[in-house]
Amino acid sequence: MKELLTYFKANEERYQKELTEFIAIPSISADVAHRKDISNAATFVEKQLKSAGLKNVKQYPTKGNPVVYGEWIEAKDAPTVLIYGHYDVQPVEPVDKWKTPPFTMTAKGGKWFARGTADDKGQLFIHLKVVEAYLKNLKKLPLNVKVIIEGEEEVGSTNLAEFVKNNLKKLSCDTILISDTNMLGKNKPSITYGLRGLTYLEVSVTALSGDQHSGTYGGAVANPIQVLAEMLVKCKDPKTSKVKIPGFYEDVVPLTKKEKTELAKIPQDDALYAKNLGARQTFGEKGFTTIERTGARPTFEINGIWGGHTGTGVKTVLPASAHAKVSMRLVANQKPEDIAKKFIDYFKSIAPDTVRVEVKKFENDGFAALTPLDAVGMKAAAAAIKKVYKKDPYFTREGGSIPVVADFQQLLGVEAILLGFGLPDDNLHAPNEKFDISQFKKGLETSMHFLEEYAKLK
Amino acid sequence: MKELLTYFKANEERYQKELTEFIAIPSISADVAHRKDISNAATFVEKQLKSAGLKNVKQYPTKGNPVVYGEWIEAKDAPTVLIYGHYDVQPVEPVDKWKTPPFTMTAKGGKWFARGTADDKGQLFIHLKVVEAYLKNLKKLPLNVKVIIEGEEEVGSTNLAEFVKNNLKKLSCDTILISDTNMLGKNKPSITYGLRGLTYLEVSVTALSGDQHSGTYGGAVANPIQVLAEMLVKCKDPKTSKVKIPGFYEDVVPLTKKEKTELAKIPQDDALYAKNLGARQTFGEKGFTTIERTGARPTFEINGIWGGHTGTGVKTVLPASAHAKVSMRLVANQKPEDIAKKFIDYFKSIAPDTVRVEVKKFENDGFAALTPLDAVGMKAAAAAIKKVYKKDPYFTREGGSIPVVADFQQLLGVEAILLGFGLPDDNLHAPNEKFDISQFKKGLETSMHFLEEYAKLK
Repeated sequence: MKELLTYFKANEERYQKELTEFIAIPSISADVAHRKDISNAATFVEKQLKSAGLKNVKQYPTKGNPVVYGEWIEAKDAPTVLIYGHYDVQPVEPVDKWKTPPFTMTAKGGKWFARGTADDKGQLFIHLKVVEAYLKNLKKLPLNVKVIIEGEEEVGSTNLAEFVKNNLKKLSCDTILISDTNMLGKNKPSITYGLRGLTYLEVSVTALSGDQHSGTYGGAVANPIQVLAEMLVKCKDPKTSKVKIPGFYEDVVPLTKKEKTELAKIPQDDALYAKNLGARQTFGEKGFTTIERTGARPTFEINGIWGGHTGTGVKTVLPASAHAKVSMRLVANQKPEDIAKKFIDYFKSIAPDTVRVEVKKFENDGFAALTPLDAVGMKAAAAAIKKVYKKDPYFTREGGSIPVVADFQQLLGVEAILLGFGLPDDNLHAPNEKFDISQFKKGLETSMHFLEEYAKLK
Repeated sequence: MKELLTYFKANEERYQKELTEFIAIPSISADVAHRKDISNAATFVEKQLKSAGLKNVKQYPTKGNPVVYGEWIEAKDAPTVLIYGHYDVQPVEPVDKWKTPPFTMTAKGGKWFARGTADDKGQLFIHLKVVEAYLKNLKKLPLNVKVIIEGEEEVGSTNLAEFVKNNLKKLSCDTILISDTNMLGKNKPSITYGLRGLTYLEVSVTALSGDQHSGTYGGAVANPIQVLAEMLVKCKDPKTSKVKIPGFYEDVVPLTKKEKTELAKIPQDDALYAKNLGARQTFGEKGFTTIERTGARPTFEINGIWGGHTGTGVKTVLPASAHAKVSMRLVANQKPEDIAKKFIDYFKSIAPDTVRVEVKKFENDGFAALTPLDAVGMKAAAAAIKKVYKKDPYFTREGGSIPVVADFQQLLGVEAILLGFGLPDDNLHAPNEKFDISQFKKGLETSMHFLEEYAKLK
């Protein structure tokens, strides 16, 4: 192992040079103008996998952007780890808010600034360099490694599930390793063991065939905004924040005692948390802590609402209709389709006779992901972190969604280990994204130890 | 009287020619580009008052558009009628929806098409021609007449109350006659004896200092759209449509038995009414008919709502704040300022501890107007209608507001008689405004009889 640590140190400058090159490719998947950059980024990754010493390295075309795959499966009787990452990045608007050019990796104050440094080029790069170090120095890995790097994560991984389905054998493994999340802090190493799922819908409540004068008709027919407000209020209890859609909590896997204990260890100051958000106080589902509420409990949120006169000044209009966007964050084992259906059925059932209701479900829903705390991969990750950070990790659940994680788990039937090296202030999806260089370096060591530990424990 | 009827008939062509000239002046008060036209319209009215034989005719400057005034007060021991009208008109957009040029009065199918034909140039013209007919033919009127024509009705009569306050003696009278409303139909003559008042506000509910990710923070802090919906729902009972603001109904003058009887005479088919609006059914305050609900009962309406993501597609945002425009239609004797204050106090009192609430009141509020059915002017108007239309009029209350009517009543201490000759399909404030020529002609006779009857009854 010392050999590898020496190699990491000796190659720091080269790592930075190569990552700078990777970052310089503006592989924005949301913008068709960057098709060529997507292709260039895939080719860059392909070359990296090859130079790392992986075999059967190849770009696989999909209906969207190519998936790059490589493997080293020569460790007989050893387990297999599938490493996942993505080479596409978020757009960079508003460009004028960037203090350094978004695609020029700039080292400053121990951080690398640029789009993709943390999400996810910099993080996936860690594992490629660890594989490279093993194969260059020891000519082998402690276990079998498969690497899959996609190019559509930032646009919903639209074509990845299809690719996985068609390549179940090639991708078969004992666990999945993903570095695309955060730690709680530099000195608060953590492992994410849960992600929330999502289903997102748009509702419309129509009372009239056209807008009318609120003086002439006000009081004689239903006001669709009023009705929409009444219906939305019936979806969540104002006092307890319990979602009132029948059967909503039916499939929820409750927090175990062990989980509650682990989550309670996470330093959390509700007053400071509220202050940082400019909120008067925290507020959420009765009977749960803030950390439990955001990570382990499903929610019903209104993401947008509109209807009638929304400009300046006065317009005495009785609008024809009113609209809202609503979403539900889900936890294991809620099913997005099922929850969406339960919402639609309930929402239609509470509509008064005065209106017509339309509900449209968006396609980008996703399952929650949950890895048991006692999974072998979790133990290996915890041991690796302890070796590098000199302390036990926290176990956290994230409120956001990475639908591909659940897809992987369901299709391959194994658990995903979310061993992220980002930090909460990385400015993901925002100007001035950065990645702490010390986290990159510790990432190399942690990844190395993870592979060793997993090989030992499995 | 025969003399006058003959005169009306003999002068029909001239009336049309003069009104065409009046209509051709695009005196749009909402558009500063039409300042010169406003001035031209005021001058046209001034000349009309003079040629009608009125005395002391003069334009009075205000902070806005001039008021034109004239009088004939030589009928000793006779009562005085103050005739009000307005020479300004609504804008004509969308121009491409007009089938004839908006400022070229076009006779077609017994109707005059053009902006201002019904609202209000054509209607005020009726009274000017009646005064002219009296003074040309009989050298006198059956009572004293004062005429005031303003130029800011379509922009809220901003400066009229001030003018009235400063000229209380000049404007002193026994009743006010206004033709700026509709009848129920050509064969359903009616007199409007009530108008609703208005107060209009904007509310903002803020939970966070900025928009946040609904995955990361959803469930841990209040959602301002949800809170706004909850608060709005607390303003009106979903089942009974009763406004729940404490003291809201305190000053409401209840419908008399006589009024209920009169309103019940008005032909009303709720199913057809709903169908015409594209509504599934009528809906409103429990215990009242549709006609009572729109005319005689105060309402709480949400005129607009907005917050969060209102564009296409999906955005998982937890918005910082949410907003709504709300208005209350008022009836006699509710006071706009008082009702606004009651709403603000109540709305703030129901805000949970999780949000900050701001309420902004708009300045264009107005009192309701109500003329007792047994007022002398009402009797005179009913008698005049019966003579011309050969049937008793319906007595109606309008849901909309003409704040100046209440201002007049309050400042001059007399009742206003809303003797409108418009029809429900006149397209007021819309393309293809029209005025039925038969209504203009009947208007001449009705106005003549009104003056006679009022002189007799008072």
